[in-house]
Amino acid sequence: MLGFAAQSLGIQCMFLDPSQDPPAAVAGPVISEAFDSLDALAKLARDCDVITYEFENVPVASVMAVEADCRISPPPAALEYAQDRLAEKQLFESLQIPVPGFRVVDSTADLRQAAEALGVPLVVKTRRFGYDGKGQAILRDTADADAVVSELGGSGLIAEQFVRFDREVSAIGVRAVSGQIVTYPLSQNQHREGILRVSRAPAEDGRIGAAANDYLYRLLTKLNYVGVLALELFVCGDSLFANEFAPRVHNSGHWTIEGANVSQFENHIRAVTGMPVVEPSLYGFPGMINIIGTMPFDKELFHKSAAVLHDYGKSPRPGRKLGHATVIGNSISDRDARLTGLQMALDES
Amino acid sequence: MLGFAAQSLGIQCMFLDPSQDPPAAVAGPVISEAFDSLDALAKLARDCDVITYEFENVPVASVMAVEADCRISPPPAALEYAQDRLAEKQLFESLQIPVPGFRVVDSTADLRQAAEALGVPLVVKTRRFGYDGKGQAILRDTADADAVVSELGGSGLIAEQFVRFDREVSAIGVRAVSGQIVTYPLSQNQHREGILRVSRAPAEDGRIGAAANDYLYRLLTKLNYVGVLALELFVCGDSLFANEFAPRVHNSGHWTIEGANVSQFENHIRAVTGMPVVEPSLYGFPGMINIIGTMPFDKELFHKSAAVLHDYGKSPRPGRKLGHATVIGNSISDRDARLTGLQMALDES
Repeated sequence: MLGFAAQSLGIQCMFLDPSQDPPAAVAGPVISEAFDSLDALAKLARDCDVITYEFENVPVASVMAVEADCRISPPPAALEYAQDRLAEKQLFESLQIPVPGFRVVDSTADLRQAAEALGVPLVVKTRRFGYDGKGQAILRDTADADAVVSELGGSGLIAEQFVRFDREVSAIGVRAVSGQIVTYPLSQNQHREGILRVSRAPAEDGRIGAAANDYLYRLLTKLNYVGVLALELFVCGDSLFANEFAPRVHNSGHWTIEGANVSQFENHIRAVTGMPVVEPSLYGFPGMINIIGTMPFDKELFHKSAAVLHDYGKSPRPGRKLGHATVIGNSISDRDARLTGLQMALDES
Repeated sequence: MLGFAAQSLGIQCMFLDPSQDPPAAVAGPVISEAFDSLDALAKLARDCDVITYEFENVPVASVMAVEADCRISPPPAALEYAQDRLAEKQLFESLQIPVPGFRVVDSTADLRQAAEALGVPLVVKTRRFGYDGKGQAILRDTADADAVVSELGGSGLIAEQFVRFDREVSAIGVRAVSGQIVTYPLSQNQHREGILRVSRAPAEDGRIGAAANDYLYRLLTKLNYVGVLALELFVCGDSLFANEFAPRVHNSGHWTIEGANVSQFENHIRAVTGMPVVEPSLYGFPGMINIIGTMPFDKELFHKSAAVLHDYGKSPRPGRKLGHATVIGNSISDRDARLTGLQMALDES
């Protein structure tokens, strides 16, 4: 999707992707090597004016290795924060962005102390390399502390208060080289088995939109950020708590392709290539459903809901995101009816 | 735009375009040869599963030369009709699609007789190779018949009644290999100096929409057509008169990229590659402005109107279409206000 956005702007891309049949192959040449291949990275740095990434588990060392030879956006520091839940939480705190209470956990004793201080349930996570609900567990009873710590590897963990949120939203913003910042209306997100399933926009209700934007501005400015950043937030009444941020285009913003005058992908490419970014304006009421695990054989089900299918061309695998579909409603109820219809059709297919 | 649509569907394209810096180069390899180069055509036929065209002045002989070796859609017969205004008018008549009165003109005497039979003013056109208002003149006074005939080459002309239309609309339809047909809501078109300037959709008002669709079905079925076809119509009160058809994606349907769940480009690629076509559903109230002659230096003017710019990357030249911009209004008045604002900004730039 970044490649397509770049093409529309007349910018040529090359890609580094170790996977077989990389989806990006439709938009330019692909170097099929590991993210830490020094040869591949040197080739990228030699042939490109700027390097960007859309996966926050790219090794920071890889990015550092080419930083002297090629401009890299977003900045590697953002990648470092995003790869360490502790550093990320401390960054939020330093910017006065509210977060659920947390404690560092490197042993069963640490987790017991955390449970005492913060109460249960607690969400216990590996500090590094977790995504889509992987590398986390819930401690409901202090008696299970040992089992939970063992399950997650014994150390390098963080325990967070379990937030009984009303809903989850994400705030997507983009900062240009010039410092110009624009933001998208909030997306409201629904997960299934830890994986994003549905996003709807706009999810604004006055106060939380303003607060979320304020947090985005603080983060983007503090990191001297260039590109798209997504901030995941819990909404509890009128309060917001930051969950985590992603230094990249975000799944909850995929509706921006059809649902706005400028997609997150175009704005990201604009930012990292030094262009001004564009203030988004929404078309109707967008919604997005992820297609996970298997792609329906009969594509007609998408057309019946007037949904636009994005098929990433990946082979099916349980829990794998194979594509997404966007609907644009004329009203909130029209969008939600289409999403429900499509969701039911997908579940039955 | 066809190339981008094909890429999104996972279909690889190659292009034949004799122009320097062909816009399609961003979407695949380009053979830079003339449309009648037999070598180039043979290469296309050898390397491709299907050949299509998006310019109705491609020589029919070129298309015929490769028809035996490669599937060609739309059918060459449609190209032949579209290249001869007389054959086209006769086709309309045979399908009982109303057309303005017309006479064949191969001499000054013919034009005088036409003026006597049909009255003045008359629109006099070359029967072949006219587009964007080129190759036509208006006869207001029979005394000018000789001058008008000379100006247009002396023969091979057609004289048509000058229709005092209320508005011009275009009907865009697409037919799949299976015979399945879907149509877009009518576009209402405004020209400036013979070149399409603004299109707005939907331009329906009950009766004319149904009649226009009926004409499209007759044409598509009669021609055993595969792909997108655009029918230009004059609206006079409740009556419709066919002006001409284009056997290709059409400028008045460019708003379908942002303004519908499926663009004319995607539906064309679907049709010519043998896929089912998709029933269009509109997003809000789309409008499109062509950018003609020069591209504004300050692209901010597009963003101020939340317009999406498509810059074809062509060098400026008076009367040349260099790009287009799309707006999606929340209402008819919102769309029209944005179009007016953008039009004024373009005129001043």
